[in-house]
Amino acid sequence: MAENEARTVEVRPESFSYVFNPYREPVASVKPGDRVVIHTEDAFESRIKSADDLPSKALATAKFLNPQTGPIAVEGAEPGDTLAVRIERIEPTRDFAVSALVPYFGGLTSTVMTRTLQEPLPEKVWVWNLSDDGKTLRNDDLGVEVDWDPFTGTLAVAPDLEAISALSPGPFGGNMDVPDVRPGNTVYLPVWNEGALVYTGDCHARQGQGELCGVALEITAKVTVVFDVIKDKAIEWPRIESPERLMVVGSARPMEDAARIANTELVLWLEEEHGFDRLDAYQLLTQAGGLYVGNMVDTTYSLVASIEKKYLRG
Amino acid sequence: MAENEARTVEVRPESFSYVFNPYREPVASVKPGDRVVIHTEDAFESRIKSADDLPSKALATAKFLNPQTGPIAVEGAEPGDTLAVRIERIEPTRDFAVSALVPYFGGLTSTVMTRTLQEPLPEKVWVWNLSDDGKTLRNDDLGVEVDWDPFTGTLAVAPDLEAISALSPGPFGGNMDVPDVRPGNTVYLPVWNEGALVYTGDCHARQGQGELCGVALEITAKVTVVFDVIKDKAIEWPRIESPERLMVVGSARPMEDAARIANTELVLWLEEEHGFDRLDAYQLLTQAGGLYVGNMVDTTYSLVASIEKKYLRG
Amino acid sequence: MAENEARTVEVRPESFSYVFNPYREPVASVKPGDRVVIHTEDAFESRIKSADDLPSKALATAKFLNPQTGPIAVEGAEPGDTLAVRIERIEPTRDFAVSALVPYFGGLTSTVMTRTLQEPLPEKVWVWNLSDDGKTLRNDDLGVEVDWDPFTGTLAVAPDLEAISALSPGPFGGNMDVPDVRPGNTVYLPVWNEGALVYTGDCHARQGQGELCGVALEITAKVTVVFDVIKDKAIEWPRIESPERLMVVGSARPMEDAARIANTELVLWLEEEHGFDRLDAYQLLTQAGGLYVGNMVDTTYSLVASIEKKYLRG
Amino acid sequence: MAENEARTVEVRPESFSYVFNPYREPVASVKPGDRVVIHTEDAFESRIKSADDLPSKALATAKFLNPQTGPIAVEGAEPGDTLAVRIERIEPTRDFAVSALVPYFGGLTSTVMTRTLQEPLPEKVWVWNLSDDGKTLRNDDLGVEVDWDPFTGTLAVAPDLEAISALSPGPFGGNMDVPDVRPGNTVYLPVWNEGALVYTGDCHARQGQGELCGVALEITAKVTVVFDVIKDKAIEWPRIESPERLMVVGSARPMEDAARIANTELVLWLEEEHGFDRLDAYQLLTQAGGLYVGNMVDTTYSLVASIEKKYLRG
Repeated sequence: MAENEARTVEVRPESFSYVFNPYREPVASVKPGDRVVIHTEDAFESRIKSADDLPSKALATAKFLNPQTGPIAVEGAEPGDTLAVRIERIEPTRDFAVSALVPYFGGLTSTVMTRTLQEPLPEKVWVWNLSDDGKTLRNDDLGVEVDWDPFTGTLAVAPDLEAISALSPGPFGGNMDVPDVRPGNTVYLPVWNEGALVYTGDCHARQGQGELCGVALEITAKVTVVFDVIKDKAIEWPRIESPERLMVVGSARPMEDAARIANTELVLWLEEEHGFDRLDAYQLLTQAGGLYVGNMVDTTYSLVASIEKKYLRG
Repeated sequence: MAENEARTVEVRPESFSYVFNPYREPVASVKPGDRVVIHTEDAFESRIKSADDLPSKALATAKFLNPQTGPIAVEGAEPGDTLAVRIERIEPTRDFAVSALVPYFGGLTSTVMTRTLQEPLPEKVWVWNLSDDGKTLRNDDLGVEVDWDPFTGTLAVAPDLEAISALSPGPFGGNMDVPDVRPGNTVYLPVWNEGALVYTGDCHARQGQGELCGVALEITAKVTVVFDVIKDKAIEWPRIESPERLMVVGSARPMEDAARIANTELVLWLEEEHGFDRLDAYQLLTQAGGLYVGNMVDTTYSLVASIEKKYLRG
Repeated sequence: MAENEARTVEVRPESFSYVFNPYREPVASVKPGDRVVIHTEDAFESRIKSADDLPSKALATAKFLNPQTGPIAVEGAEPGDTLAVRIERIEPTRDFAVSALVPYFGGLTSTVMTRTLQEPLPEKVWVWNLSDDGKTLRNDDLGVEVDWDPFTGTLAVAPDLEAISALSPGPFGGNMDVPDVRPGNTVYLPVWNEGALVYTGDCHARQGQGELCGVALEITAKVTVVFDVIKDKAIEWPRIESPERLMVVGSARPMEDAARIANTELVLWLEEEHGFDRLDAYQLLTQAGGLYVGNMVDTTYSLVASIEKKYLRG
Repeated sequence: MAENEARTVEVRPESFSYVFNPYREPVASVKPGDRVVIHTEDAFESRIKSADDLPSKALATAKFLNPQTGPIAVEGAEPGDTLAVRIERIEPTRDFAVSALVPYFGGLTSTVMTRTLQEPLPEKVWVWNLSDDGKTLRNDDLGVEVDWDPFTGTLAVAPDLEAISALSPGPFGGNMDVPDVRPGNTVYLPVWNEGALVYTGDCHARQGQGELCGVALEITAKVTVVFDVIKDKAIEWPRIESPERLMVVGSARPMEDAARIANTELVLWLEEEHGFDRLDAYQLLTQAGGLYVGNMVDTTYSLVASIEKKYLRG
C-alpha cells in the first residue's frame, strides 16, 4: 500500500454487469490506498419505487437482476494474493428503500430451487422512507421504524475461469447478503485474476439475519472503500474483520454445509495466524464462537462464523 | 397460577431417564407458581472428569448418554395447553466443566448420520475450571478464560405418544442446546400429556452458537424454575421470551428446514398475538429479525429466529 | 430355525399401535420358521374409501395415522442378534386401493417439516380398482392401468429405548416405503429387544420410486412372513436380499445423508461378508451399484443402495 | 431438420474448455441432421493411466479438470428453442478405463463442500482393461468384470450469461453423470445462445447410480450425435427420452431439491404434452414413476425422475 499516493477515485458506471465476470473490461483502475467511491444501483435497477410497482409487472422487462458496478482493477493484485477491502462509508443516493415479495422467491415460499406445485404467495411492495436526519426508515403499513444500518449485499472478486451470476454468493464473495459487510469492517477476498477485478452493488439500508423474504431494504448508494493487497497469501473463502471480531462467510447448500465451511475456515485461520492448536481452536469456537445466518434465500445460503478478538493471543 | 400457594420444591432424582418419555412415572408433582429446584447430571453422567478420561474408554460402559431428571408433573396442565417455564437460576454443583471430542460426533467431523469412510478425529478432553468467584472458567491448554453464562441444554415436555431419545431436539423442546434457554428467560412448550411431564438436564456453563464440537462446557447443576400453565392455548414449537426478544426454536434437518420452521412460527406468533398482517410480519422479520444456530451437531439442528420487542405494537 | 416345528400362525389384531414401541405387550409370539400371516389395516385405517372422502374431513377424527399390527415376539431373538424376515406373500383383503393428496403432505408441496406460508395444494382422492384376476389396478380419472406389485410400507422392530411414530423410517426399519420390501425378498433388521418385537402394516398395492405425493396405493392386506434369527450378529441399518441383489436402506435428512448411510453400510457388508477390501468395495459400487429413492415424503427419506450378486465372490 | 443435407462432421479439438462458456468461439458449426463425431478427452486429461499415477501427483500440474470439447454451434438454434441431441454411438479411443480416489472428493468422504477436519481417505487408482471384443472391462484388484455400457458424463449447452465450471451440472445439462445420457437416447436441452453452443466430454465406459467415489470408468472416446432444433419451445431443465421412458434430470443441493425439480418438471411435461391434469400426473408418478440418483458427488447432485411411455395417452 502506498498511502502517500492516496487519492479519491469516483466510479460511476455507464453500464452494469449481471455476472461476476473475469472477462469484462475494468471500468476503473485504482491503487491500493486510494479512496474509491463507487456508485451502485439497487437490486431491481430502480424499477420498483412505489407500492404499485408489483414485481411481476415492474420486472417484466428485466432479463437480469442485481446490477453490479465493476470490475474495478486494483493495481498490483495478482493470483495467489488476498485483497483487503476496507469499507469506509455507505451513503444513500435516494431518500427511500424498497422491499417486495417476488413470486417464488424468498425464505418462506417454494422457489425455483425448492420446487413445489403450490401457487406463489401474493406480491407486495413495501416502501420505507428515510428520515430527514438519515438515521431511521419507516414503513406505514407496518407502523414500524428501523435504524439505518447499511451494508453492501454484494462484494466480489471475479472468479477463476467462471463467470457467476450476480445473484450468487460463493468463495469469491458475491451476493452474500451478510450485514457484517458494513462500514468499519474489512473484507478479505481471494485473488484469482490480475487486478482482482472487484464488483459491488445491491446496497441495503439494513437487513435482518437471514434476509427472510429475499429482499432487504434496497437502496441506490455510494460506497466508499479502500483496497489493500496482501501479497502471496491465499485464502479460500471470504473473511471479515471488525473491531471486535474475526469472521468467515461460508456459502453452500444445504445450510449445514455453509456452517461447516465457515467454521472449518475459522479454525484454520486461528491455527495459522493466532497460534492455536487445531483441535484447541475447534474447542474455542465450540464454547465462544458465533454463528448466524446471513441469507437463507440466495442460490446458496451464507453463514457467518465468528470469534471475538478478546480470546486471541498475542 | 396460584402465587399464594407458592413453595419451594426440590427434585433430586434417584434415577435418570434417557428418553423424553410419556410413559414414565413422575418423579415429582408441583403446582404452577412453585419454585422448583431441579438437580441435574451432566451429559456424560460424570464419567469424564479429567483430561485422561478419553470418551472411548470413559463412555464404554454407558449404554445411553444425556441423563434427564424427570418427568415432573405440573398440576393442571392438560393436552392443548401451553406450559411456561420461567428459568430463575442455574447453579453449578461442582467447580469445573468438561468438553471433549467424541469419535464421529460433532460439527466438523463425519458422524453416524453424515457417514464417510474416513478415520475419526483424535479424542481429547478439555477441563475448564471455574474461578473462585464463579464468574469465569479457564482452560490451560487454550490459555483462555470465558464467562460463566449457563443454560440448560435440554428442557422438554413428554411428546405425544412417542418416547424420544434425550439426545434429540424437536417440537417438544428437548436437546435444543440453545443458549437462550437461560436464567431470566421464559420457555413455552406445547402440552400433550396430563401434567405436561417435564424433563431437564444437560446444563452448560456456556456454549458458542452451533455447539461446534458437539460438547459444550458440561456441568452438574441445580436449575431453579417456576412453571405456569396457559390454558387452552396450543403452540407447535418451543417459544422463548427474554426481556428484549421473542424467539422461536425450530429443529430439523437439513438446517434450512429448521430456519423455515422457526421463522414461520414467529410470523404466525406476530400475526396472532401482535396484530401484524401475516405478510407484514414476514417483512418485519426480513428487515429486523435475528437468526442464529443453536446447535449444528444433534440429531436435528436447532435454529433460533427472533425479533426485538421494541418493534411490537401495543 | 427349526423347520420341523413349522406351523402357520395367524395374527389378527384387536387394536393397533401408532408407534414402534418397545413397551407394548406382544400381540403374538411365534417361533423362527413359523409361517406368520399378519392382517394389516391401511395407512388411513380405512377412513378413505371413495373420491368423496377428502382427507381434511375423513381424517378429522384420526388422532394418529398408519396403524401397525404388532408387536409380534419372535422366540429366541435377543439384543445383538439380527432378525431375518422372509416375505412370502401379500394378499389384498379388499378389491381397491386408495391414494390421496393430504394438505401439506407429499413431495411436491411444502410440509410441516419444509414450511412455507403458501396455501396447500387442493385435496383429491384417487380410487384404484383391482381387476378380477387381481393382477392390475385401474383409476378412471387417469385412464391408466398399473400392475399389482405389492409390498409392506412399514416393517419394523421395536427401537432400543425409544418409541417412534409409525410414520417414521429409521435404523429399526419402520415406514421405509421401499418397494423392495416385497414378496420373494428377505429383510434383515437389528434386534434391540427380547423377541425383536416386530411391527408391520401400511401395505401398498404398488408405488413408484419416491412415493411422490406421499400416499401410495394403500390397501388392507394379509402379509405372510417367516422369521429367522441370526444369533450374535449385529447390523446397524436394514438390509434386503433379493434373488439378484444385496441392498441397504438408509433413512435420513437431507437426502444425501440417507445415500451416504446406505452406501457406507453396503461397503461394510461387502467387506465383512464378501471378501472385498473396503476401498475396492467402494470402487465396485461406484461402477456397478444401484441407488434409488424409496420415499421422499416421510419424516426421513429412505434411499436404497444395491449391488447385483453376480459381482460377488465365492 | 434437413435430412437430405445430412453429412458427417468430425470435431477434433485443438484445445479444451474447462467451463461451459457462452463467450468462447465455436470449434465447429454443424447443421441439424448432420452426423457429428466428437472426440473427447477423459476427465483427467489422460494424466492417470496406471495404478502408480496417484492423483495428488498426477494432477498436480492440472489447474482445471474435466476438459470439454466445444462449443459446437448448431445452425438455426436460437434463444427460446430446445435442442435435441440424439446420441448414436460412443466408441472408446483407448483400451482401458481408469477410476481413482481423489483426496476430499467423492460420496463417502468429506469434501471441499462438506468440510470436516478429518484426514482424507487414502489415494488409489484402478485400471479397468477393455476386453478384446470391447464388451466388458476387468479390474484385477477387484477380480470383477463389468459390461461396457458407455455414456457421456457431460453434455451441455452454454448457459445464459454465466460461464460455469465443467465440473457442474445444472439446467444447462453439464456434468450430470447420468447413465441415461447414452446411445439410443435423446437429450433435450434449453437454448440460450445463438447456435446453442454445445459442449461434451467426460465419457464413461460405465458407472453405477450415484457415481459413488466420484470417478466413473473414465475413457477417451468418440461420441456420435445428431442434433435437431425444436423451434419456439422452451424447457427449463434437461429432458431425456429413451425408447421406453421419459426422464427429467434435476440438479441441486440438498438432494431432495434435485428430486423436487426433476419430478415437478416431469409433472409439467405430462400436463403440457400428454393431456394429464396436473394433479393426475402427480398421482401417476406417485404410483409408477422412477427416481434414481445419477451423481451424489458433483457440485450439485443429479437425480432422474422418469415414467414409462406405456402409461402415456394417445
